[in-house]
Amino acid sequence: MMKSPIPDYLRRVLEKARPFDSGEPASYIDVLAKADTSRSAVAVATVDGSVYSAGDDDVEFSIQSISKPFVYALAIQDQGLDRVLEKVGVEPSGDAFNRLSLEAGTNRPMNPMINAGAVAAHALVVSIDATMEQRVDRIVEALSRLAGRQLHVDEAVYEAELKDANRNIGIAYMLKAAGMITCDPQEAVRGYIRQCSINVNVRDLAMMAATLGNGGLHPVSGDRIMPQESVRQVLSVMTTCGMYNSSGDWIASVGIPAKSGVSGGIIGALPGQLGLAVFSPRLDERGNSVRGVAMCKQLSRDMGFHMMDMSQIAGASVRSWTATVAGGSKQPNACQEDVVVFELRGAVRFAGAERLTRAITAEMDKIRASCESSSGTGVQPHVCAVLFSFRNTYSLNDVARRLIHENIRRLANMTNVVVIDPSGVLKLPVNQALDQGLGFQQPRVFKTQAEARHYIGGIGCRVVSNEDSI
Amino acid sequence: MMKSPIPDYLRRVLEKARPFDSGEPASYIDVLAKADTSRSAVAVATVDGSVYSAGDDDVEFSIQSISKPFVYALAIQDQGLDRVLEKVGVEPSGDAFNRLSLEAGTNRPMNPMINAGAVAAHALVVSIDATMEQRVDRIVEALSRLAGRQLHVDEAVYEAELKDANRNIGIAYMLKAAGMITCDPQEAVRGYIRQCSINVNVRDLAMMAATLGNGGLHPVSGDRIMPQESVRQVLSVMTTCGMYNSSGDWIASVGIPAKSGVSGGIIGALPGQLGLAVFSPRLDERGNSVRGVAMCKQLSRDMGFHMMDMSQIAGASVRSWTATVAGGSKQPNACQEDVVVFELRGAVRFAGAERLTRAITAEMDKIRASCESSSGTGVQPHVCAVLFSFRNTYSLNDVARRLIHENIRRLANMTNVVVIDPSGVLKLPVNQALDQGLGFQQPRVFKTQAEARHYIGGIGCRVVSNEDSI
Amino acid sequence: MMKSPIPDYLRRVLEKARPFDSGEPASYIDVLAKADTSRSAVAVATVDGSVYSAGDDDVEFSIQSISKPFVYALAIQDQGLDRVLEKVGVEPSGDAFNRLSLEAGTNRPMNPMINAGAVAAHALVVSIDATMEQRVDRIVEALSRLAGRQLHVDEAVYEAELKDANRNIGIAYMLKAAGMITCDPQEAVRGYIRQCSINVNVRDLAMMAATLGNGGLHPVSGDRIMPQESVRQVLSVMTTCGMYNSSGDWIASVGIPAKSGVSGGIIGALPGQLGLAVFSPRLDERGNSVRGVAMCKQLSRDMGFHMMDMSQIAGASVRSWTATVAGGSKQPNACQEDVVVFELRGAVRFAGAERLTRAITAEMDKIRASCESSSGTGVQPHVCAVLFSFRNTYSLNDVARRLIHENIRRLANMTNVVVIDPSGVLKLPVNQALDQGLGFQQPRVFKTQAEARHYIGGIGCRVVSNEDSI
Amino acid sequence: MMKSPIPDYLRRVLEKARPFDSGEPASYIDVLAKADTSRSAVAVATVDGSVYSAGDDDVEFSIQSISKPFVYALAIQDQGLDRVLEKVGVEPSGDAFNRLSLEAGTNRPMNPMINAGAVAAHALVVSIDATMEQRVDRIVEALSRLAGRQLHVDEAVYEAELKDANRNIGIAYMLKAAGMITCDPQEAVRGYIRQCSINVNVRDLAMMAATLGNGGLHPVSGDRIMPQESVRQVLSVMTTCGMYNSSGDWIASVGIPAKSGVSGGIIGALPGQLGLAVFSPRLDERGNSVRGVAMCKQLSRDMGFHMMDMSQIAGASVRSWTATVAGGSKQPNACQEDVVVFELRGAVRFAGAERLTRAITAEMDKIRASCESSSGTGVQPHVCAVLFSFRNTYSLNDVARRLIHENIRRLANMTNVVVIDPSGVLKLPVNQALDQGLGFQQPRVFKTQAEARHYIGGIGCRVVSNEDSI
Repeated sequence: MMKSPIPDYLRRVLEKARPFDSGEPASYIDVLAKADTSRSAVAVATVDGSVYSAGDDDVEFSIQSISKPFVYALAIQDQGLDRVLEKVGVEPSGDAFNRLSLEAGTNRPMNPMINAGAVAAHALVVSIDATMEQRVDRIVEALSRLAGRQLHVDEAVYEAELKDANRNIGIAYMLKAAGMITCDPQEAVRGYIRQCSINVNVRDLAMMAATLGNGGLHPVSGDRIMPQESVRQVLSVMTTCGMYNSSGDWIASVGIPAKSGVSGGIIGALPGQLGLAVFSPRLDERGNSVRGVAMCKQLSRDMGFHMMDMSQIAGASVRSWTATVAGGSKQPNACQEDVVVFELRGAVRFAGAERLTRAITAEMDKIRASCESSSGTGVQPHVCAVLFSFRNTYSLNDVARRLIHENIRRLANMTNVVVIDPSGVLKLPVNQALDQGLGFQQPRVFKTQAEARHYIGGIGCRVVSNEDSI
Repeated sequence: MMKSPIPDYLRRVLEKARPFDSGEPASYIDVLAKADTSRSAVAVATVDGSVYSAGDDDVEFSIQSISKPFVYALAIQDQGLDRVLEKVGVEPSGDAFNRLSLEAGTNRPMNPMINAGAVAAHALVVSIDATMEQRVDRIVEALSRLAGRQLHVDEAVYEAELKDANRNIGIAYMLKAAGMITCDPQEAVRGYIRQCSINVNVRDLAMMAATLGNGGLHPVSGDRIMPQESVRQVLSVMTTCGMYNSSGDWIASVGIPAKSGVSGGIIGALPGQLGLAVFSPRLDERGNSVRGVAMCKQLSRDMGFHMMDMSQIAGASVRSWTATVAGGSKQPNACQEDVVVFELRGAVRFAGAERLTRAITAEMDKIRASCESSSGTGVQPHVCAVLFSFRNTYSLNDVARRLIHENIRRLANMTNVVVIDPSGVLKLPVNQALDQGLGFQQPRVFKTQAEARHYIGGIGCRVVSNEDSI
Repeated sequence: MMKSPIPDYLRRVLEKARPFDSGEPASYIDVLAKADTSRSAVAVATVDGSVYSAGDDDVEFSIQSISKPFVYALAIQDQGLDRVLEKVGVEPSGDAFNRLSLEAGTNRPMNPMINAGAVAAHALVVSIDATMEQRVDRIVEALSRLAGRQLHVDEAVYEAELKDANRNIGIAYMLKAAGMITCDPQEAVRGYIRQCSINVNVRDLAMMAATLGNGGLHPVSGDRIMPQESVRQVLSVMTTCGMYNSSGDWIASVGIPAKSGVSGGIIGALPGQLGLAVFSPRLDERGNSVRGVAMCKQLSRDMGFHMMDMSQIAGASVRSWTATVAGGSKQPNACQEDVVVFELRGAVRFAGAERLTRAITAEMDKIRASCESSSGTGVQPHVCAVLFSFRNTYSLNDVARRLIHENIRRLANMTNVVVIDPSGVLKLPVNQALDQGLGFQQPRVFKTQAEARHYIGGIGCRVVSNEDSI
Repeated sequence: MMKSPIPDYLRRVLEKARPFDSGEPASYIDVLAKADTSRSAVAVATVDGSVYSAGDDDVEFSIQSISKPFVYALAIQDQGLDRVLEKVGVEPSGDAFNRLSLEAGTNRPMNPMINAGAVAAHALVVSIDATMEQRVDRIVEALSRLAGRQLHVDEAVYEAELKDANRNIGIAYMLKAAGMITCDPQEAVRGYIRQCSINVNVRDLAMMAATLGNGGLHPVSGDRIMPQESVRQVLSVMTTCGMYNSSGDWIASVGIPAKSGVSGGIIGALPGQLGLAVFSPRLDERGNSVRGVAMCKQLSRDMGFHMMDMSQIAGASVRSWTATVAGGSKQPNACQEDVVVFELRGAVRFAGAERLTRAITAEMDKIRASCESSSGTGVQPHVCAVLFSFRNTYSLNDVARRLIHENIRRLANMTNVVVIDPSGVLKLPVNQALDQGLGFQQPRVFKTQAEARHYIGGIGCRVVSNEDSI
């Protein structure tokens, strides 16, 4: 039986990290201090919902600070980004996680990844008038949806954290004084601690991170759990502030937006690709899991996960188009009957659409030159039809779509434009003006090659069928 | 004549930014203070070498701090990253650009985007024993290669800057005292000022940025100008430190690794897609071009350039593979003669390779189940051959390649494996053991479909030719 | 009838400050915001209990931060300086009064004049197990003793402050978290706010400050209210931290250890001389009374109150001694019958005692030389007696006393030593060995001149009575 | 032969400090690093010019940072305090001595005790246009006058320091850039280093410090070397900034304005009393001499040198007055012929003059009451004359003098006022109106008791001669 090599790889990652046995579990509460330090786990979830894991992948631990990015996303969703930005900044603080770090002038906590900002973000969930229970219910429910299973608050952790909460209560009162929270500070901290006490395992976390990596759509259910705007904001803040005062080093060396928690977990989210999670209780002096960091570095290095890595990103939208003059063996004087074909492949963003644009102008100029040389200047139209095939176009982003619309609009004023777009990526209205473009000729849009061929034949253009044809 | 809509778009961006007329040009030297504030320009260069621009795109101005990321890259190239990291850190400083900002403990300047770090990086170019002339020659030559034309130091700017260099000279002496530079501090500053006085226009800068966006390969010449390692490091540092103490806000709102200069220029580099440059002399209180910032924000918004934007990144590697059992209308009992085909399209990274892996295991399991139900358990092999087509695979990164190799190795122990790889993206050695994989069956690798079909026919497998076939 | 010019002077100080009408009363609570801004008062209390005042000297206002030095003194008294230093530092913070400002490493609040340190000091009063009521009772009672009348908490101020106490509560929780307080943080703040809400007028405050100026002895009752150790510590901390982040400027320009409060009061304590208090509700941007600062500056300038002012301090102990050879017209050969007299006047510290020492050695050498020239070498004793008069010695400090004892001990081995010490400042035991000086000749100590003269006559020395004699 | 016990005491101080052998000499230049660490010395100089010392009191070492307060005084003298304050602040920096520490906003170095402020102060000596030689000559000459002997720059130290001057040169360039110095930065540093390289021994330093302690008058020559304004400013800054970031602790525990240098010297200046200096090359981690600190602490403790110590300061001006009604046995009905006598003793400041004022009003009221009861109301004048004796008044400060003048002016309108002022401390013009007091009766001022008695007799008042009479 054929087996995936990925779990084997993750097991190797885990084994390689095992010798890293420095550090100690968090000691400020007993329930963390007595964590089994032999535990380690790693999980990777792809944006289309596969989860791979190795090690103690069913061991549960409290989510702690890893809840911060998700609750920040909820705050944005519930209040809008602008209102959240009034209460929590986005700049790296250069300080430790438990420093107050309010911005001079605005009094905002520097960012939502430090405790002060996380408490402020927590207090924005649901509404500023919500009760603690309402906020916690909302958060547990949202995190459960992200994880794909019902999560629960670990009451023992909650009780222990509550006893050691003076620093956070202090922060909350100062936030209240600064006008950054409106609810009762004690309630804000109790809610925040419940949020931090939700139990998860690495598979949960990997899936949660993968939702960030998937732009807010749940990898398995496909549900939109977070608006794209929130995800973008959250990933940006994880990039600059996620690893506290070593964020610069983390981005340079690991290159994955990430967040760590005091239980020993770390998540990373690689946009468009995956979420990952690691776990091991021993922490370094900055409060990050020693083995967890080692595993993340190895994963990044082995898997080419650095977000600034060209091998990673290059070519993303570079799936090239192919323009084929029907018939292959074009005759110089055959201008009038030619059909020029442009095919766009892959996931197309600006760069891809720009390439198509360039190809169109180049090809049309070439044809015009060729036709003019054979037929004299000013001959119009140069070609019988222009055919665009989007059969192999996986996706278009907005700017790519607008650029292609504009190309079609311009061409449609010169010649017949025929479009094959089986999945409707182009969102081209069949009987409606494009863009602001009133009064220009409509392109004809078909779902299948056969329909397009039939139409082209009907208007008297030549199409030669071969492997590279439409 | 067909024209590209991109220049029109850039002109609109320029026009929309024109009303932003607050701020003043840099006033510390006369030659900057008397800059023509009506000037504005924007340019975009794609990673495959097209440059679009609008406005005063041939107006030259001194490159100033925009030289910092490129000279940092040179330092890494000339000294190796480790030695550079001994002398210059990578953490955001939270301070203004002209603060000394040495790290406690290490005495390193916080990062290479502040002046202190930039002077230290400058002093590492060529070698620590190099003369000022050698360093400046190296830098002018490297920046000229990046720009694609010979650049020159603006001697008037140089002379003026030199008269106002006390702060930087002060910084250089303190770097010398801290052991962060070894050359004469005055020389370091003179060299640094010459570096900053190199004249460029927005088209030059866009091309230079596009080289960063293209992983170090020049978009036009295709020459490797910087090692990928440098580029990754430079882009990471631009992400966290490029816009000084508002880097967090810039990444959240614009989402493009960037760098600004006091002449009024800003560059941005979007990995895998493009480089952009804007120019207008009026500066805001942080020293960034007022119109330049407005144009960057508009470009990011309009074009979906935010690096954490899923519409930007999603699908990057998601170009789907297609597995087609030859013949389409497969007969349940035809296991023995079937050829299973997997086609991988697009730029493939881990996520794409993972999907292929998943598809292989799923398909093979399905076939086994199907064959077993018709033929009884334990029948081997289930299929006649497995065919991989990489005809439409734009690129593979390292982890994707290794994962596919591993899949092939595992399959090759079960059945015939045939590979079509016209451009050799798989780097599969025809007569050599893969990876560590000793002793396993070799796959057969062909350049063309015809060769593959012929081979498959020769070993007695059925292949039906239709649109979805190989 | 003869009237003191001092009240007239204070009225002039008040009038000169009246035009300073910038600033606003503290606005954070209504009861302060609606203060009558026309009110102004000034009071001076001498270390022997006279109080002069002008203006609204019977208007009461809440003591606010002016309570800090007194409660710090109580903490030292109740816990000992060492335990207090474990919880509160003594370094200027350079920060505003309401910043947390905990020292790196120790977690101590930087000093007891910022809120964090003041809350920590409050929590040390009575004992760490005391109730809030016990602490507040102790503080009200102690402040009442200092003021010389029963003071009361202003319940309206207390209630209002309590509603606005979030920042201080925040600070208290963070102190608790840092181990700097052991009681309930809410209780600590409530107690601290009650402490700040005690009502006083400028005459109260001047008397309280005068107790600090008088080394802890109450100027009127003469009771020791604070140990000298506390007073020294409190005045030191007021010197370096009393005016927050402008302490350096205050000491340089005003030169009086001081403390201001948000109600508009300021106190100053000039060791050995007086306490002063001013009041006017309008505050500058640093939270100090605008007119109050103006009055302090004028008082310091007019009155020579700067503690580094030589006109202020010089001569403090410089009351010269006089050595008179009895008879005035000493005969060269009369050595054997001479009485050498040393008179020490004033408040004598090291410098005065050193001068006496020098005079003794010089005089004795001179006499020896003179006697030797007339009588041959080795004649012993040179003089019939040495007489010390302390009739005009106001006080001796410890080092001066020890130095004089040592001089007497040394002389007593050479000749008769007679001491007139009516008030016993020398603390010379009549029939006991001095210091460690076992076995040396005892000086004879008398209360009156008459007794001394009689004794001297009895041992056969010559004493001539004239104006400069004993 | 009679010997002073003070040298013995200093030797004991030295011996007690000898066991403190931790720390190392400054290592940054060879000439300091190879200092003989067995050397130790202590010296005390009184404000009237006696110098006591023990240990290696003739060993010379470079003055280093101990030059800072003296050169700051010179800057004030040469430029005026206001201009100096434009360039150098007075607030404690909380930073190490070699940090740049420019104030936000003003760009001034925080204070003249850190290197940046010291270089800025150096550059203000003589004039901003002066040459380095002129400044250094001025400084060497001034320090020589202070020491009482010709001092010299140690050229070996100067050369070595110059080689290691990068940090200070860096600081100087940044000061230049900030507009805080106007001369060439390299010259400023060379001059500053020459200033620091002047050789001294502890006796020199003690004498220099004693000049500060003596308000700027040289203890031996009596020459005014610094204006009182400079001295006050210098001592204030030494108080808050002299021991860098432990100034708060130093003032609380030692209580003497002080300054240390990297060669191992420390000076302290106790206003009105003395200057002290200690020396031993081993430094603690803050750069202060280990044994030096130990000796200062012991001296402060033993000698009661803490400037906030009441035993130190109390009674400074409290030398009491005595009011004696001539004749002692005053008859109730003898009002008309009585002479009331007030004698003021000691060094009189405000507090003393206030006491005199109070005594006058009390006595006059008592007499009036007494006379009225015997003679009926409205009897004028109550006394024949008021006699003030200043025979035992050591000194008056300005406010005391003005207050006494005012008392005399008031009394002179009621009765005859006779003044005995042998040394003219009252500065009472014999034939001139006092203060603003036009048209009031002139007091009669005499140099001797005899003259005064004669005058009093002449106007018909009764004077009874006894021990307590005039």
